[in-house]
Amino acid sequence: MRYFLELGYLGSPFYGWQRQPDRPTVQQSVEQALATLLQEPVEVVGAGRTDTGVHAAYYVAHADFARPVEDAEQLLYKLNRLLPVAIVAHRLTPVAETAHARFSAVEREYRYFVEPRKNPFTQAMRWQYTVPLDVGRMNEAARCLLETDDFTTFAKLNSNNTTNRCSVRRAAWERGTEGELRFTIRADRFLRNMVRAIVGTLVDVGRGRYTAEEFRAIVAARDLSLASTGAPAQGLFLSDVRYPPELFERGVARTRDFADTKTLFY
Amino acid sequence: MRYFLELGYLGSPFYGWQRQPDRPTVQQSVEQALATLLQEPVEVVGAGRTDTGVHAAYYVAHADFARPVEDAEQLLYKLNRLLPVAIVAHRLTPVAETAHARFSAVEREYRYFVEPRKNPFTQAMRWQYTVPLDVGRMNEAARCLLETDDFTTFAKLNSNNTTNRCSVRRAAWERGTEGELRFTIRADRFLRNMVRAIVGTLVDVGRGRYTAEEFRAIVAARDLSLASTGAPAQGLFLSDVRYPPELFERGVARTRDFADTKTLFY
Repeated sequence: MRYFLELGYLGSPFYGWQRQPDRPTVQQSVEQALATLLQEPVEVVGAGRTDTGVHAAYYVAHADFARPVEDAEQLLYKLNRLLPVAIVAHRLTPVAETAHARFSAVEREYRYFVEPRKNPFTQAMRWQYTVPLDVGRMNEAARCLLETDDFTTFAKLNSNNTTNRCSVRRAAWERGTEGELRFTIRADRFLRNMVRAIVGTLVDVGRGRYTAEEFRAIVAARDLSLASTGAPAQGLFLSDVRYPPELFERGVARTRDFADTKTLFY
Repeated sequence: MRYFLELGYLGSPFYGWQRQPDRPTVQQSVEQALATLLQEPVEVVGAGRTDTGVHAAYYVAHADFARPVEDAEQLLYKLNRLLPVAIVAHRLTPVAETAHARFSAVEREYRYFVEPRKNPFTQAMRWQYTVPLDVGRMNEAARCLLETDDFTTFAKLNSNNTTNRCSVRRAAWERGTEGELRFTIRADRFLRNMVRAIVGTLVDVGRGRYTAEEFRAIVAARDLSLASTGAPAQGLFLSDVRYPPELFERGVARTRDFADTKTLFY
């Protein structure tokens, strides 16, 4: 019996998603909690690897259980009690045996946050960057990401990607009421390191180091050495994973609800 | 030359405000950073002690410097770079020699947050409490706090308070759009442990353990053993300290601005 598990996690305490010997990871935490509850070894396959310190406001993993789950709500309740505070399980849904958390995904979305001031309450989830940034210019530059499909400039050296082709469907910066910036990028797939390298280079556009035209030339050059230093991990959230609707539809994720509404923050 | 320093801090990494041998505290961090910048020993006097893990969205401390500060903005900038990420310095203001961060304060405000669901992104700043709570009942009970001035029930045993009298001017729960609860309490002074003991007992009202009438009787009994277990430290924020306006007026505190407006949270 295959299930999709919708999750959210704070990346700070983990060495990324993927299981590693002797280091805490999200995958290992989820597998261990499920194995304890189901009394059987469980392997969990994630929608993608997130790096050390990167968060997931939304994440999907699949697992095969020996027996069907009788009461998914009760299992979720117990799972949330057993998992570390930094991981929340939102929903457990039976899916077709052919549904695969990683290979069936057709679109992913990441968000990156830049905060212009020191803030102790959000610092674990923001890049605190005090140099003023020109958002208009950053958006002008970001538009060229929609017009290319070769992201070699933002790939990682020696990564084992078979291709550097991605189809970016959205790439835009927004400014919040307190001056904080949010970058949203959606694509069919992402290369390792890609979002942080794009953000780092766009921030260099925003501060005036490059023009939008120069950014376009950097992308077109397909040269890794031209990308700026990657933006720090703690500002990055995986925020969506989409599947063909006949395979799986996203449930209501509480971490998203919290974020998208006016809330009593402190 | 006496200065008031307006601060904010995340309590999680600290053993409270007050200096302690061999343990990180907010006071020690601020004193050390100022001493480094001013090249002189600095003693900082805080508006009050916050316990281990309690946050301050707003805090005031005073310090006497040997020489007047020539460029307060530049000192603040350097101070914020030197302080840990969990502490932010908002403003440095010269005051009269008679102004005292603790003894001149005429009113303080605390806020306590309860969140009904697991949320990895806010867990360090909330009491995650999943039992449904009746806010109407909690507010009905809280009203009696405005009508008494003896808070012995919520005092800590063996604390060296000379009196358990406090004048509470506000005590109310609000519910946010995502079901999260915020308790705001204002008074001329607070006893050690008082807010967390009040919150713990009001939550017992909200879950149905006590009626509002029973809560009133618990308060009137002036018996420490009747208070419920104190609510956990991580949900508590000191949120305001007020002085007579001729001595000092609060500046714009950025942590408050961030909280009170609709913001791009993730």
